[in-house]
Amino acid sequence: MDDLAIPAGKAIAELKTVLGDRLATSVSVRDHHSHDTSRLKPHLPDAVAFPRTEEEVQAIISACAAHGVPVVPFGAGSSMEGHTIPVRGGITLDTREMNKVLEIRPEDLLAVVQPGVTRKQLNVELRETGLMFSVDPGADASLGGMASTRGSGTTAVRYGTMRENVLALRVVTPDGTAIRTGSRARKSSTGYDLTHLFVGAEGTLGVITELAVRLHPIPEAVSSAICAFPTVAEAVEAVIEAVQYGIPVARVEFLDEVAIAGVNSYSKLDLPVAPTLFFEFHGTPAWVEEQARLAEDITRSHGAIGFRWTTDADERAKLWQARHDLFWATKAIIPGYDLYTGDICVPISRLAESIVAARADIDASSLKGQIIGHVGDGNFHTAYLIDPNNPEHLREAEELADRLVERALVVGGTASGEHGIGMAKLKFMRREHGKAVDVMKRIKTALDPLGIMNPGKMGDAG
Amino acid sequence: MDDLAIPAGKAIAELKTVLGDRLATSVSVRDHHSHDTSRLKPHLPDAVAFPRTEEEVQAIISACAAHGVPVVPFGAGSSMEGHTIPVRGGITLDTREMNKVLEIRPEDLLAVVQPGVTRKQLNVELRETGLMFSVDPGADASLGGMASTRGSGTTAVRYGTMRENVLALRVVTPDGTAIRTGSRARKSSTGYDLTHLFVGAEGTLGVITELAVRLHPIPEAVSSAICAFPTVAEAVEAVIEAVQYGIPVARVEFLDEVAIAGVNSYSKLDLPVAPTLFFEFHGTPAWVEEQARLAEDITRSHGAIGFRWTTDADERAKLWQARHDLFWATKAIIPGYDLYTGDICVPISRLAESIVAARADIDASSLKGQIIGHVGDGNFHTAYLIDPNNPEHLREAEELADRLVERALVVGGTASGEHGIGMAKLKFMRREHGKAVDVMKRIKTALDPLGIMNPGKMGDAG
Repeated sequence: MDDLAIPAGKAIAELKTVLGDRLATSVSVRDHHSHDTSRLKPHLPDAVAFPRTEEEVQAIISACAAHGVPVVPFGAGSSMEGHTIPVRGGITLDTREMNKVLEIRPEDLLAVVQPGVTRKQLNVELRETGLMFSVDPGADASLGGMASTRGSGTTAVRYGTMRENVLALRVVTPDGTAIRTGSRARKSSTGYDLTHLFVGAEGTLGVITELAVRLHPIPEAVSSAICAFPTVAEAVEAVIEAVQYGIPVARVEFLDEVAIAGVNSYSKLDLPVAPTLFFEFHGTPAWVEEQARLAEDITRSHGAIGFRWTTDADERAKLWQARHDLFWATKAIIPGYDLYTGDICVPISRLAESIVAARADIDASSLKGQIIGHVGDGNFHTAYLIDPNNPEHLREAEELADRLVERALVVGGTASGEHGIGMAKLKFMRREHGKAVDVMKRIKTALDPLGIMNPGKMGDAG
Repeated sequence: MDDLAIPAGKAIAELKTVLGDRLATSVSVRDHHSHDTSRLKPHLPDAVAFPRTEEEVQAIISACAAHGVPVVPFGAGSSMEGHTIPVRGGITLDTREMNKVLEIRPEDLLAVVQPGVTRKQLNVELRETGLMFSVDPGADASLGGMASTRGSGTTAVRYGTMRENVLALRVVTPDGTAIRTGSRARKSSTGYDLTHLFVGAEGTLGVITELAVRLHPIPEAVSSAICAFPTVAEAVEAVIEAVQYGIPVARVEFLDEVAIAGVNSYSKLDLPVAPTLFFEFHGTPAWVEEQARLAEDITRSHGAIGFRWTTDADERAKLWQARHDLFWATKAIIPGYDLYTGDICVPISRLAESIVAARADIDASSLKGQIIGHVGDGNFHTAYLIDPNNPEHLREAEELADRLVERALVVGGTASGEHGIGMAKLKFMRREHGKAVDVMKRIKTALDPLGIMNPGKMGDAG
């Protein structure tokens, strides 16, 4: 890739002098950056840059802007909808060497980090403070990537998503300028909210070079509970009532009967095979006990079969480990098969019917599949088991996932609760957002007139 | 104002056919819309429109766009920094007749309202649901205005500001197009976050025609507590520790000794004249009792003088009424004088020194003044007593308020916690946001190329 006749070649040659070995053009490095965890067709970048500082990010973007070369930001590579695939080549900007926790301010409940810091790394560095970073998307994603996809996970019902947990940013915009958004204050009424514009922009408006994120006190006591229900509707009704009652559940996860069967088999548990809720409560010892008791009353009034709760750390760990191992448990249902996942979020009033319809769709298909959900938010995932060598399976899974989204949009929901648009869901942008897509495009053009930032993604929705 | 030779005259003539009597050109109506609650110089709009529907808002904006006439959105007129003053004339778009609560969805914890609905009106309509709209900026502001200024108030520490409580919008953009932003789902990872772009844009990017806002369960039990401290620093340290401990205080208000003296005199109380915290706790009866007990332990360890708490509704009402009457209590200190207010937000670690410096500034001036604050957020207000007929007083108050902002910016804070930019704080935009202002201007130009939306305000920051 040292062909100076092509624009990328010129940018690469210029950047070699800035980055040296940290500008890789080997096929192995480029191959590693050609895909994410989705099943979308990989595409090689022309080179991969590993900047360490904001100044280096500026140099990369300036060189790419000068030669009209695409820049594709890359965090941990754990995105799920094709976000980081460099479909038009160019330079992938991997933030893994921007991995310093710059500042921890316990009094302000915030930490300042570089974008390549992962959530687990941050929580290790917070060990002595009594504080935690709450957002947990499952994968040990980078915070820059989590911010860019507006990630969330199991704790969002209590502590919020990246939308609520990013307080301020530093960003290099597509002309190479470094700006800061937000401040160190918890709230502000000054200026357009650029922080929230870059959070969720999937790298199409600039590169995040620093994040100030909120921290939360580690609760003094934690308790977990589990209960099964005769029907999905009763499980969801129980969640709605618990939330309306004001019980501040820290997590409430739904697993359908197929998921429970998988968990039982894989994690050696003997849970009743029925729609099930996993609860977690955070607070003082007395308060988590009261929360669990209130939740028990509510779930029983909605027909719950048993309600097992525990503050025992080992038993709790075992339960949540089973939840976290669900991916592997499901894969194990048919050895050699892969999972194809769906992700939507609906108003919680429409959640039960949405899950029931998703289940009926799976049952009417030739595929096996399960449904799990962060039900306090109305967000749920389907996972379809497919034979990776059977194109018919892939086609059928795509169809099921699309139908899921179409139904979500009909009931006022969204095409993605937490996995994002990437490339896979570009086709739904206009359906979900209507004419607002034109406003988004005007913003994209205003900030990135050359269209170099992660082209072929959200900024280019049709 | 029927001079068809000027652009506004043409737009007015066109709109008369659409709005009839709801397009007012009388001096009295125009005068009412020439100012807000600030001391900034009033300016008459050429006409005031009172649309009832989104279609009428579109007609107004389209007519103004066609003739290059400014449009200034106007809610309850309670803004404090000149937001609604039509400095370049044009048409003021008053949303008071767009005052319908369109939908209440208890299961989804949301309500959908027109922008002219006030927060008190919404809470009255929620009476039977057990839910509340939490944001309380003091004034009975319109929800469209509160969203546009990213308003907050006493409960933000627990329930968030308008930033956290607006879920979705409908907006008419400066070319007359109606778009929707967000969805009815609680979270989403699709598309640029336009909701947060319009929240806080102070009417410079479009007119909000509908809001979906979050509701919260009315707590089963509420308790209040009050305690005084030897110093400001000890009061603030107590708040920091309570928040770090994870006590979910619903409100925590700071009043300095001058404010307490005013409250004692006006509301016939006998509180110790010292820096004081008012707490409020929400939850179950047992949980609010535990919160109060934990807060008492913490405040005592920080030198609190007494800690009086109560769940008695009458006593609580009396206490908070005194807090709410503070404006009048302060005005009463010198009959005939007015209040000039300051508003900043700082990282809570810098709050004590910021309050102490603000106090020292007041003491070194010729003015009397007090300090109160939503201290859980690091947000506080100064109020300077000025003789409205003494220009020297106004000059001195301006100087004090400016110095307050300058110090806030030095410690990583913001020029406004909740009152906004309006016109009064335009001069701080570049100081606070640096080159990000250029990004804001590019967005403004992309969405409003004619510059018709609330000109001379945030969108035109230099």
